[in-house]
Amino acid sequence: MSDPQNGLRRGRGRRPAEAVRAAALTAAGEMLFETGLPGLTFDKIAQRAGVSKMTLYKWWPSPGALAFEAYFTAVEPRLAFDDTGDIAHDLRSQLRSFVRLLTAERGGPVIAALVGAAQHDPDLAAVLAEQYTIPRRTLAVDRLRRAQEAGQIAPDVDPQVVVDQLWGACYHRLLMPAEPLTLEFVDALLRNLLRGIAQPVAGTTSGASV
Amino acid sequence: MSDPQNGLRRGRGRRPAEAVRAAALTAAGEMLFETGLPGLTFDKIAQRAGVSKMTLYKWWPSPGALAFEAYFTAVEPRLAFDDTGDIAHDLRSQLRSFVRLLTAERGGPVIAALVGAAQHDPDLAAVLAEQYTIPRRTLAVDRLRRAQEAGQIAPDVDPQVVVDQLWGACYHRLLMPAEPLTLEFVDALLRNLLRGIAQPVAGTTSGASV
Repeated sequence: MSDPQNGLRRGRGRRPAEAVRAAALTAAGEMLFETGLPGLTFDKIAQRAGVSKMTLYKWWPSPGALAFEAYFTAVEPRLAFDDTGDIAHDLRSQLRSFVRLLTAERGGPVIAALVGAAQHDPDLAAVLAEQYTIPRRTLAVDRLRRAQEAGQIAPDVDPQVVVDQLWGACYHRLLMPAEPLTLEFVDALLRNLLRGIAQPVAGTTSGASV
Repeated sequence: MSDPQNGLRRGRGRRPAEAVRAAALTAAGEMLFETGLPGLTFDKIAQRAGVSKMTLYKWWPSPGALAFEAYFTAVEPRLAFDDTGDIAHDLRSQLRSFVRLLTAERGGPVIAALVGAAQHDPDLAAVLAEQYTIPRRTLAVDRLRRAQEAGQIAPDVDPQVVVDQLWGACYHRLLMPAEPLTLEFVDALLRNLLRGIAQPVAGTTSGASV
């Protein structure tokens, strides 16, 4: 905040590289959530961030690459994973933040466009897997493993499969839309998966044969 | 088979319209599973089906539209939903067919390409929802409702949510690849969802608070 270069930024572009980079990411992230991926150009981002277009070209090969990094910079704090010691509580609060990001905060069309484009762009597919899909899976898997150690999740459950049955179920409603993506849906996902959907057979604790 | 027009088909193209249409769909479906969506042209389909390219133009606006119909014609019999009276058995056999279709039978890249393209093509998105996503959800929901009536699935479970936690989980591994899509995965999905993942608390039949 007291950086003496700040006073010069509009006149001579003398902000430190990291500040310029952050300004570009913030501007691109805001524009993504306001207007979506199509229409995002280096011209518009440069204007909003108060940086030169040449600077953007120096760091990102395309507006798409900048948009991709901006999206994940913007969503990172929204997708934090709490550990209160209660796995049901922590899954619910993380999934609710995730669904709000996709719906009310309009991240859904952005991630849908990225996943869609990745289906015919192997480079984007690789970046999406390495920088988004795998790290986000790992956060959830780590939290689920701690819940297994704490005796809250059955020890023979594969946490990777749980990820597909919670977050994957939300992506299904996003990418192949047919039913609404709501906070009630999140609660139903958790209820089904934690307690099971089989009707308990009287006198035993297990339901349909599995 | 005894249709007298059959003998004329190569010389004068006199097969009945429905037979020509079926031949085009079969050829396009086979080519889709052999080589994928890219590279599928009216020329190649016409040659393989033994029909004229003009005939294809008459029925389908583009090779993509023909490919879309061919795909669903080809997968329909593979995705039949049994009702043996045992929901765990019927879900397992349908999901295993589905995963085999996506992997060993190479349907995965085709449906991934269609879902990917639908993210930026509203017309394709509408067709995909109406002709594939919604009808297939309905088949599963109907079978799950009968299982509820038979006392095999808890009565307060929303069958639509179950669809997202089984088939949606498979689509998640297809569209955002990170973990393998296998028959063991199908078994884990069913085990988790039918019995629940929460560690049962000693002396009660319920686990973590839901």
